[in-house]
Amino acid sequence: MTMDVYFDNSATTVVDPEVRDLMIRVMQEDYGNAASLHKKGVDAERYVRRAKEQIAATLKCEPKQIYFTSGGTESNNWALIGAAFANRRAGTHLITTLVEHPSVKNTMKFLEENGFTVTWLSVDEDGLVSAEEVRDALRPDTILVSVMQVNNEIGALEPVKEIGEMLHRVRPDVLFHVDAIQAYGKYGIYPKKQYIDLLSVSGHKLHGPKGIGFLYIADRVKIRPLIYGGGQQKGLRSGTENVPGEAGLGLAAEKAYRNLDENTGKMREVKERMIEGLSGIPGTHMNGRTGADSAPHILSCSFDGVRSEVLLHALEERGIYVSSGSACASSHPSEINTLMGIGLPKERQEGTLRFSFCDENTVEEADYVLEALREVLPVLRRFTRR
Amino acid sequence: MTMDVYFDNSATTVVDPEVRDLMIRVMQEDYGNAASLHKKGVDAERYVRRAKEQIAATLKCEPKQIYFTSGGTESNNWALIGAAFANRRAGTHLITTLVEHPSVKNTMKFLEENGFTVTWLSVDEDGLVSAEEVRDALRPDTILVSVMQVNNEIGALEPVKEIGEMLHRVRPDVLFHVDAIQAYGKYGIYPKKQYIDLLSVSGHKLHGPKGIGFLYIADRVKIRPLIYGGGQQKGLRSGTENVPGEAGLGLAAEKAYRNLDENTGKMREVKERMIEGLSGIPGTHMNGRTGADSAPHILSCSFDGVRSEVLLHALEERGIYVSSGSACASSHPSEINTLMGIGLPKERQEGTLRFSFCDENTVEEADYVLEALREVLPVLRRFTRR
Repeated sequence: MTMDVYFDNSATTVVDPEVRDLMIRVMQEDYGNAASLHKKGVDAERYVRRAKEQIAATLKCEPKQIYFTSGGTESNNWALIGAAFANRRAGTHLITTLVEHPSVKNTMKFLEENGFTVTWLSVDEDGLVSAEEVRDALRPDTILVSVMQVNNEIGALEPVKEIGEMLHRVRPDVLFHVDAIQAYGKYGIYPKKQYIDLLSVSGHKLHGPKGIGFLYIADRVKIRPLIYGGGQQKGLRSGTENVPGEAGLGLAAEKAYRNLDENTGKMREVKERMIEGLSGIPGTHMNGRTGADSAPHILSCSFDGVRSEVLLHALEERGIYVSSGSACASSHPSEINTLMGIGLPKERQEGTLRFSFCDENTVEEADYVLEALREVLPVLRRFTRR
Repeated sequence: MTMDVYFDNSATTVVDPEVRDLMIRVMQEDYGNAASLHKKGVDAERYVRRAKEQIAATLKCEPKQIYFTSGGTESNNWALIGAAFANRRAGTHLITTLVEHPSVKNTMKFLEENGFTVTWLSVDEDGLVSAEEVRDALRPDTILVSVMQVNNEIGALEPVKEIGEMLHRVRPDVLFHVDAIQAYGKYGIYPKKQYIDLLSVSGHKLHGPKGIGFLYIADRVKIRPLIYGGGQQKGLRSGTENVPGEAGLGLAAEKAYRNLDENTGKMREVKERMIEGLSGIPGTHMNGRTGADSAPHILSCSFDGVRSEVLLHALEERGIYVSSGSACASSHPSEINTLMGIGLPKERQEGTLRFSFCDENTVEEADYVLEALREVLPVLRRFTRR
């Protein structure tokens, strides 16, 4: 029996049918430009406002603190570049970690090339940085700290709460940016309570549309635009509003948080079934923590004696879609991926898969994937050894 | 009898049903991340490639010269900021006009604040700049000229061909950027033949999706990214590909050019009917040229003795959607709009409407709008005079 099992939900998710239907309605009937003065513009603007309200409700913040972007990558770029340049008179030192997503790391690298200094914090074997390490890296000229909430490669849960509290206590002037692209829709995130100034989110990781995301910006943040133009979104992010995308993201956000515990419970169940099964397969090594102190939807596993790409394609032939855990690397901190960051030997990095789940996945699917692994691994390993 | 007449197609257009259906399919079935190594990623990547091919066919360029963005505003920002910073060793002087869209003007203003010098060329009473004026503004340190093809406020058709040829002749080292957001899908544009190095396009102006656009980049152009990250699009524009949007834009582009003459013929017919009718209404003044030497889909008209917003809402009550021609203004060149740029007196600016058409509009709709204007104008003018 062949199933189709999509375990690559951290790469992207399928669009929720209700989200899709809402987008169709906006594209077809309420297609106005939200900046237009007439009724079609007012109707479009209503969708935009509603989406901001839906998102704000999930974050317990104000709708006016939500700014739409083209996705998580733009949100991260804007947060870092926008805040760094707007605050450079106060200082030019930034702090981040070695395991951030490339949209943070390569933006930090750009800032390094443009007059800023970046401290790249290393992580422990579980991929974790500590609030103490961030504290020790603070300098008088530090203006911003950027730490992701959930690591995209191994699901490590960074101590965002502790870092926020520490900064609030010892250096309330320093801005705190959180890349929540893998965390939003899986955890309750309350920027005000958690002293987060800037929060990046992407739509397509939570059954929302691609090409849309948002940046939460606390009132106190000085930030300059990344994109200039017609003055939309209070002049901070110009461009005709992507009304279908924004409406879709608003609904996807509402739905994700409406059933948060139930949904993440399902992901956790699938993840645990996978861990249990993988533990029984010889030559497998889970990367990072795997319990309740790790993200419910991401599992990284290294397989001895097999290359991830080969394994990925062998699974694909059985209708199973997963991600390889490896990436190319060079000497700059921005090029170090999480698997390198946690000190994984090269051979192990090259035999790593990431399984990532959504609320639609089932333990039956996990069993199917485990069965496939039990079958293909011995064969592939035999080939590799020759 | 009441009709619904949407004459605001330069603000945005309704999504074509085939484009919408394609987007639905991508969102629902082929929802993979184009960067994924498995089949779902390969399928997604195929949509991206197909879209680039469709667009490249319309421009007679190569698919690899097309880079997707979140829309026209991002395309303009990226073209200008990306090229200016990448070429600043060669010079820091830029040339543009006083009648560009805010996404060009405010980006130029940002560049002015960051070490670049901008020459802002004025225009004649028809909103036109000349190739000679551009030539006279050239300096040894000029690195880029940016001129729009079709003006969004009055439909003026700038001499892009002449400027391209002049630059190629006298200063082939200077990059030529064309904002074609209102021109693409209405005119044959051939960057290579017309010596255009950078060309900005938006999806939602031609029955494509919102939140998507592209930038054509000629091979010779040195440009840096505006958005950094995972290395998508050859590292020049990172971020998960907006596959549904890109596929939708590709199809919208193909359809626009498949029936170009027929579609623009219909727009021109509606525009001419409007001009004919408006000429018979006392106290109306067409702005800029209105013949074959103007865009087929944009008509700007000033009405004596009435404020555009009041007129706009009076028409709205009869199901007619148009745009007001006015905008706020200050002393910086970036704040001068086209109506000011062509020397329109303040009162006339404040009584201006923009009618903009698509291939779905009809002369019957034009007649309905003209009838409505004939009825409401005398009433509104009486009120205004009191």
